Amino acid sequence: MDDTSNKIISTEHHFQGKVFNVRTDRVLLDIGFETNIDIVEHKPAVSIVPIDENDRIVMVRQYRHPSSRNLLEIPAGIIEDGEKPEKTALRELQEETGYTARNLRLMTGFWSSPGFTNEYMYAYIAKDLLESKLPQDEDEDISIEKIPLDQLERLIKFGEIEDAKSIACILMAKFLFNK
Amino acid sequence: MDDTSNKIISTEHHFQGKVFNVRTDRVLLDIGFETNIDIVEHKPAVSIVPIDENDRIVMVRQYRHPSSRNLLEIPAGIIEDGEKPEKTALRELQEETGYTARNLRLMTGFWSSPGFTNEYMYAYIAKDLLESKLPQDEDEDISIEKIPLDQLERLIKFGEIEDAKSIACILMAKFLFNK
Repeated sequence: MDDTSNKIISTEHHFQGKVFNVRTDRVLLDIGFETNIDIVEHKPAVSIVPIDENDRIVMVRQYRHPSSRNLLEIPAGIIEDGEKPEKTALRELQEETGYTARNLRLMTGFWSSPGFTNEYMYAYIAKDLLESKLPQDEDEDISIEKIPLDQLERLIKFGEIEDAKSIACILMAKFLFNK
Repeated sequence: MDDTSNKIISTEHHFQGKVFNVRTDRVLLDIGFETNIDIVEHKPAVSIVPIDENDRIVMVRQYRHPSSRNLLEIPAGIIEDGEKPEKTALRELQEETGYTARNLRLMTGFWSSPGFTNEYMYAYIAKDLLESKLPQDEDEDISIEKIPLDQLERLIKFGEIEDAKSIACILMAKFLFNK
């Protein structure tokens, strides 16, 4: 959906990092007054619900410094410049879980937190998994856990999965797309 | 879940804004090497699935500058300093939709995008809605749309709802908590 955009009067860049940049736009709003909006510029990303032949999801557990927690999540990662989202999905699946997939299906996409960041995420289901012969990513301290789809519902309900994309994608895969 | 945290060697603050701050931590990882991690510090927030007596969800549509889109979302907002999450939920529900609720239930909570931000969101179901006599927030250019829960599933499936928290919370409300 394309919309009329706010009129940007000026832009100030504050920070350039490896994963995100920060800028402030001075904008003239539709309703007639000016305001400053701070934005985290983040590259688009992918997330993947990998479903094995026993209807188990291949989850990843890793320490997340921003939340100071070990979180159980679906595999995900940032799209590199010029990379097609499907390629990112297969690359991240392989790097994080050691699997590749013969069957990759785009469910939909979503903004991670549209009040402050432009991070957009493409959400895939991966099936017909095969163990990959390529090495996993050694920079990442990740362990994998294969959990039946039905059991994941309980983990979501009882707060054991506390990651927005994982909750959204697992429930979409189970109730809207896995037919 | 509390975990052993990374050892933080030093911290540099880059940006202080109205909605978020940015810092870089120099950390010693468990696996033995040092790295820099950039973090968007964001206050915790709430989101609400308001369900009316006809099983319609009160959604809000608003222009989101970071994504340059008009997005259809559930009501949500940031917890003010010292505010209890339930109070934020009722306040944001009233400001954004004009309703208050006699029945508010915490579903669970989740991190919005734990790779780069500490934004955590408490997710509520609100029922027994009443039209509030308080004024709505005039700073926000928001319109409300009441959409049957069943129809929302189709809007998610066909990419008309592209917001992580909304997808996660609507599907949780429908399939895990609305019994």
